[in-house]
Amino acid sequence: MTLAVGVIGTGMIGQDHIRRLTKVLSGVEVVAVNDIDSKRAAATAPAGAKVYESAQALINSNSVAAVVICSWGPAHEEQLLDCVAAGKPVFCEKPMVTSEAAALKVMEAETAFGRRLVQVGFMRRFDADYRRLKRTIDGGTLGTPLMYRSVHRNASVPPGLYTSDMPLNDTMVHDADISRWLLDDEIVGVEVRMPRKSSVGGELRDPHLVLLHMGQGAIVSVEISVNIAYGYDIRGEVSCERGVAELPNRPATVISDIHGIRQAIPEDWRERFIEAYDQEFREWIVAAGEGTSTGPSAWDGYAATLAADAALRAAQSGTRQVVKMIEKPALYRRSVAQAAE
Amino acid sequence: MTLAVGVIGTGMIGQDHIRRLTKVLSGVEVVAVNDIDSKRAAATAPAGAKVYESAQALINSNSVAAVVICSWGPAHEEQLLDCVAAGKPVFCEKPMVTSEAAALKVMEAETAFGRRLVQVGFMRRFDADYRRLKRTIDGGTLGTPLMYRSVHRNASVPPGLYTSDMPLNDTMVHDADISRWLLDDEIVGVEVRMPRKSSVGGELRDPHLVLLHMGQGAIVSVEISVNIAYGYDIRGEVSCERGVAELPNRPATVISDIHGIRQAIPEDWRERFIEAYDQEFREWIVAAGEGTSTGPSAWDGYAATLAADAALRAAQSGTRQVVKMIEKPALYRRSVAQAAE
Amino acid sequence: MTLAVGVIGTGMIGQDHIRRLTKVLSGVEVVAVNDIDSKRAAATAPAGAKVYESAQALINSNSVAAVVICSWGPAHEEQLLDCVAAGKPVFCEKPMVTSEAAALKVMEAETAFGRRLVQVGFMRRFDADYRRLKRTIDGGTLGTPLMYRSVHRNASVPPGLYTSDMPLNDTMVHDADISRWLLDDEIVGVEVRMPRKSSVGGELRDPHLVLLHMGQGAIVSVEISVNIAYGYDIRGEVSCERGVAELPNRPATVISDIHGIRQAIPEDWRERFIEAYDQEFREWIVAAGEGTSTGPSAWDGYAATLAADAALRAAQSGTRQVVKMIEKPALYRRSVAQAAE
Amino acid sequence: MTLAVGVIGTGMIGQDHIRRLTKVLSGVEVVAVNDIDSKRAAATAPAGAKVYESAQALINSNSVAAVVICSWGPAHEEQLLDCVAAGKPVFCEKPMVTSEAAALKVMEAETAFGRRLVQVGFMRRFDADYRRLKRTIDGGTLGTPLMYRSVHRNASVPPGLYTSDMPLNDTMVHDADISRWLLDDEIVGVEVRMPRKSSVGGELRDPHLVLLHMGQGAIVSVEISVNIAYGYDIRGEVSCERGVAELPNRPATVISDIHGIRQAIPEDWRERFIEAYDQEFREWIVAAGEGTSTGPSAWDGYAATLAADAALRAAQSGTRQVVKMIEKPALYRRSVAQAAE
Repeated sequence: MTLAVGVIGTGMIGQDHIRRLTKVLSGVEVVAVNDIDSKRAAATAPAGAKVYESAQALINSNSVAAVVICSWGPAHEEQLLDCVAAGKPVFCEKPMVTSEAAALKVMEAETAFGRRLVQVGFMRRFDADYRRLKRTIDGGTLGTPLMYRSVHRNASVPPGLYTSDMPLNDTMVHDADISRWLLDDEIVGVEVRMPRKSSVGGELRDPHLVLLHMGQGAIVSVEISVNIAYGYDIRGEVSCERGVAELPNRPATVISDIHGIRQAIPEDWRERFIEAYDQEFREWIVAAGEGTSTGPSAWDGYAATLAADAALRAAQSGTRQVVKMIEKPALYRRSVAQAAE
Repeated sequence: MTLAVGVIGTGMIGQDHIRRLTKVLSGVEVVAVNDIDSKRAAATAPAGAKVYESAQALINSNSVAAVVICSWGPAHEEQLLDCVAAGKPVFCEKPMVTSEAAALKVMEAETAFGRRLVQVGFMRRFDADYRRLKRTIDGGTLGTPLMYRSVHRNASVPPGLYTSDMPLNDTMVHDADISRWLLDDEIVGVEVRMPRKSSVGGELRDPHLVLLHMGQGAIVSVEISVNIAYGYDIRGEVSCERGVAELPNRPATVISDIHGIRQAIPEDWRERFIEAYDQEFREWIVAAGEGTSTGPSAWDGYAATLAADAALRAAQSGTRQVVKMIEKPALYRRSVAQAAE
Repeated sequence: MTLAVGVIGTGMIGQDHIRRLTKVLSGVEVVAVNDIDSKRAAATAPAGAKVYESAQALINSNSVAAVVICSWGPAHEEQLLDCVAAGKPVFCEKPMVTSEAAALKVMEAETAFGRRLVQVGFMRRFDADYRRLKRTIDGGTLGTPLMYRSVHRNASVPPGLYTSDMPLNDTMVHDADISRWLLDDEIVGVEVRMPRKSSVGGELRDPHLVLLHMGQGAIVSVEISVNIAYGYDIRGEVSCERGVAELPNRPATVISDIHGIRQAIPEDWRERFIEAYDQEFREWIVAAGEGTSTGPSAWDGYAATLAADAALRAAQSGTRQVVKMIEKPALYRRSVAQAAE
Repeated sequence: MTLAVGVIGTGMIGQDHIRRLTKVLSGVEVVAVNDIDSKRAAATAPAGAKVYESAQALINSNSVAAVVICSWGPAHEEQLLDCVAAGKPVFCEKPMVTSEAAALKVMEAETAFGRRLVQVGFMRRFDADYRRLKRTIDGGTLGTPLMYRSVHRNASVPPGLYTSDMPLNDTMVHDADISRWLLDDEIVGVEVRMPRKSSVGGELRDPHLVLLHMGQGAIVSVEISVNIAYGYDIRGEVSCERGVAELPNRPATVISDIHGIRQAIPEDWRERFIEAYDQEFREWIVAAGEGTSTGPSAWDGYAATLAADAALRAAQSGTRQVVKMIEKPALYRRSVAQAAE
């Protein structure tokens, strides 16, 4: 049985997901597309897909069983609420929404509906390296995790387009989400320190050192360097009571030549996480076929929003900012077994 | 457009490919199955697939556009010839055939047909690590490859079932094929040396050290250890004029604990090559949709047969055995660009 | 020409240095020993060495050309001042002294003398791995260093003997000193964060996360875990503007077995830094032969004292503590070339 | 007590050993030097050393307790016999001698003398990496070693000076010696294969692939590449029944930059083995102080001569050449415990 999907937003990431849904994955068909630029929507629609004039029309179409949202952030709230109203599983690229109030509304609607419908695009949770890392920690032989170090390095970011709030608002949220997931815990406080500024990247403040204080006491330190030139380098290391577990280097030919013994580094997030994106949708397709969603939930989107807000306040104030969440609705409470996925 | 596939042979590997074709890959449907054990065929057939009483009936069915052969080796010759007679693309698990004469017949039939139809299951060529290794060598900055070392280690083989000819006949052919592909050259001579026998594995002669002499002079040394206990460890290292290129370790969590700084090793070939199998079929599906095949050809199946025969003779005689191939039919001559895939 | 050395303090570290000076290194002779326990001094004295009843007598003896201080910390101040008064080169194990006031007195005396005599035992600066790391950074191709991460993990510390102030007062000072040296900068502020407490080690607060703010803006994060069970694991990673430089794993046989592909980790600091200790004394012997000392100076001992004091205050207060140094006396200002050694 | 040493031969290696004996190591003094070029001897002699007109005069001088031979190979036989006649411990650079007959004479003389006096300069046995590798194998947990792979790569060799017999006669003997030592076994047969010739290095035949057949059945494969441009890369991997043990990469800063994640490779044997040379002499000094020698013996020098001879014959003939040794004199039979050193 094939899942009939409608895609809202046909920009770069939308086009990539359409390619994925039509060329790579099984059990799914793109039957509908929508974009605020209807010409782009028409140009991007795969064979057999209908172009809808509005997101709402697409969502409510009888031919659409599940929705993928790749529009810009401020449009997500309304589209998500429409999906929930229609009872349709929806995959939503990050950010889920752009304010705490919006996140609360989405969770309220979904809770009222009574079944998970929303999946948020934190693809790292589907990456094989991160999953092995989590299995190692959850296995327990290393003892309780006490510290986590998350390194997030971009070769470069587009000058002008990548603005001063984005290291914390766009980049760091991935580290925040994966820290919550790896440690199975919530963020309760955020500190931001600004090391010596890199001379690369003009006015942009770079790098950042962020401390995330977790509910059970673990401390996460996040290094964010967005113009480090040499590649897209994502590292993660968990210090436990009796040992340490780290993400491996990415597989790459081991070359011995005049530059030494060496392995190439991924150029960007597309190269690094391409299999994670595939797997993310593979699991969503299965879940959506059963009328629900899986992986990162609206609760996780809410947590990411709060973490980013706290980080921006912490950068301004120089002090530790508290993250205060509502009580977790039962819908989002998963057993330990599920958390490990 | 979906490729309608018939699967012949529903044993372990056949079942795994049916899973792959129905659950993992897009653009393909299993519409027909056949097995000498018709009960097993019926039990294995996915929803909507018809069970055929004979391989030939399946091959000739109008509802089957392309064929996957997973029967036992001695049955392949006739099934391949039937596929070619029917003009249908066919994926055939190794060994393509079990004699030089049979290989010549298959190539003759395909050459007469005038278009490639046969793809042989050498999945390593589709593995990302091997492909990066080949790109590095083909890139040319390290100079001409002069030596290749191929290490093939199995944790264990089933006593009794894995017989004395299999290290050279079944196991080594993967190393022979990947050497030909990596070095873009043919094997012209084979030597086999028997190191001190492992006390593991009863009567089975293990390990083997094989030297493959390539047409342009490069020498490949192959270590085959089939009961080495610690894991399935595939290594490859190309010594070139100005540098060396090697397969990397497989990605695995880097754990620091009382056993040291360490990374797990794959347990078996399923774990090691699962993505390669997926990619192998992904590319075959595209090619078969265009009425042809891609990757390892009947010529490569023929070369593997000759290499295994020569290795068995070399093990008997202790001397270097010549590998003498027919002139390469034009159908199998690929440009350098194609060779690199 | 052989350097005649007197050793004060013949406990564990003193005995190890006597072994080093008599069995390993050339150009040096141990001619005198002293200990508050004169029996231990007599038992430890190598052939031909005279046992002195007091440290002062040893220092002032005409047969002693240079002094090695391995007594306990509170005794150092007086012994160092005696050495300077006698104009004799002196190697002093850390801590140089136990208070800021004492450090100032030592520097004053040495400055008045007009030539460097004091070398403090920060052996990491003599370790080949750290020296290569510093050369890489100083080479400049990676750009300015912006962050440094120093990881200091002990397999275990002796319960009871290793008290609550020691992670910051004894252990962390090595990280503080090497950070100053690697980055060629001074510490201006210290923050201490306490992650979730390890259940290993009883009452002892462990681990610690320390932030050192450097004068030019770089931030150093130090992880201190003193009961992590798996080994003595010292790591260091410098994030620069255009790349990253890290200490390598220690050389150890690469074993592939049922525990994975793995390398052993040093058991303790003796194993990890044995060559660094040798090299430290090798260079001191040469300098002392010329009537002076080299490497870590009284200024560095002073800086370490201030860093430890600030860290202890920061742990108490939870806030950032300022480190305020006197103006650097000319005697301790080295050119960039000298800093790189 | 200081060992009074006379050095014969003050060329490059002789000068390096004089530096080592005077500047690096303890317990030793260079009291005499000799060279066929007496001006060079005079220029090289350290303070206090006497220049002797003949090697024999130096050897027989009462002020010389032990001898270091760094003259050219053909002179070694006579000088070694003189040392044995004088009953003096002697360290002799490789080759011990240049013919089987000479090796037999040296062993005969030493055996008649009744105590080991001769140590041959196979420094790899003193390298920490090789020693750890041997300890791992001897530990037995990996089972019996069945294969060893020795890789010997030089960045370049001097054109003209490095002649066609040297890859097997000079370079390969190190691999032959270390194989015998690691596997605690003798070479009984040698095969040489010539892979495709490198275009680097003019007429010189390069690389070589050598198979050493050991007495107990293990097979050693040696890759010799002497113009591989990228560095001096020595690798070693032992395949055992239940696992594999390998030499690690040399410690070098881990740099992440536009060339990838990388570590530098040693430039040449001086850089690679400098600590091994130091340790080799450190142990010899102790043994010579007790009137004997340690490490590689005249028997090992004899075995190396035979291995090189067989390899040269094997390269000529293309066939396997037998290595036939005399029965091992009792003087050279060491217990297993001693073999592990």
